[in-house]
Amino acid sequence: MRKDDCIFCKLANGDIPTNALYEDDIVKAIFDLSPATKGHIIILTKEHFDNLYSIDEETAAHVFKVAAKLAKATKAALKCNGMNILQNNEEIAGQTVFHFHMHIIPRYVGDNVKFEWHPGKISEEEIKDLTKKIQSSFE
Amino acid sequence: MRKDDCIFCKLANGDIPTNALYEDDIVKAIFDLSPATKGHIIILTKEHFDNLYSIDEETAAHVFKVAAKLAKATKAALKCNGMNILQNNEEIAGQTVFHFHMHIIPRYVGDNVKFEWHPGKISEEEIKDLTKKIQSSFE
Repeated sequence: MRKDDCIFCKLANGDIPTNALYEDDIVKAIFDLSPATKGHIIILTKEHFDNLYSIDEETAAHVFKVAAKLAKATKAALKCNGMNILQNNEEIAGQTVFHFHMHIIPRYVGDNVKFEWHPGKISEEEIKDLTKKIQSSFE
Repeated sequence: MRKDDCIFCKLANGDIPTNALYEDDIVKAIFDLSPATKGHIIILTKEHFDNLYSIDEETAAHVFKVAAKLAKATKAALKCNGMNILQNNEEIAGQTVFHFHMHIIPRYVGDNVKFEWHPGKISEEEIKDLTKKIQSSFE
């Protein structure tokens, strides 16, 4: 399914012309036009999914298979010092276009990318409680 | 293949006992013991791969299939406000254990997680140049 007025549906399916770095029946990978660093790629699904919560497992699997392929080639080609794979869901997590996509962000010494959090703790009791809650939501 | 003295090999394969949130033949998902937020999960491969550059495509595909399953269940169970999927490669990117793993980080209003970068630009010429370089490195 595609969604009217979704810019990533148009980009992924060629309604807006773009140079694809990689394309197959399920995804298109292009360069992010507001890159975090040199070689910042986004992988878009051709079908519309708002985010990871609504994607089917086969499409999800294919996306990361392609991410691995692109990560290897990008590391080899650009000799970056590291790489982050980032996939954001909902506005608070940094999702700005509400069509599933995955970022491949090459990292370089001195770049301005920051992924930070304050590590917390988790008790044995909380592990048991969260495990029960999440497992009871498995489909 | 497993690697001696790799703590994630031991955790994933049961040499260090742990409560698994999810487990199958290829991966084990556990709670991060230094969580960024409530419900922070890591998915570990049972086989040792230093990072995404060395993983095989089938294993990569399976990891994200499991990530999608866990993301859906975690969103439903914890009613978080968003979610980041993050996979770090090499020290500069925040990788601290050099065994492939993927973070599932539920997000909540007011949490202390920051993923920031300064958006740059990319020219048509650079797109062509990077496309050629990366495509010539495809395996």
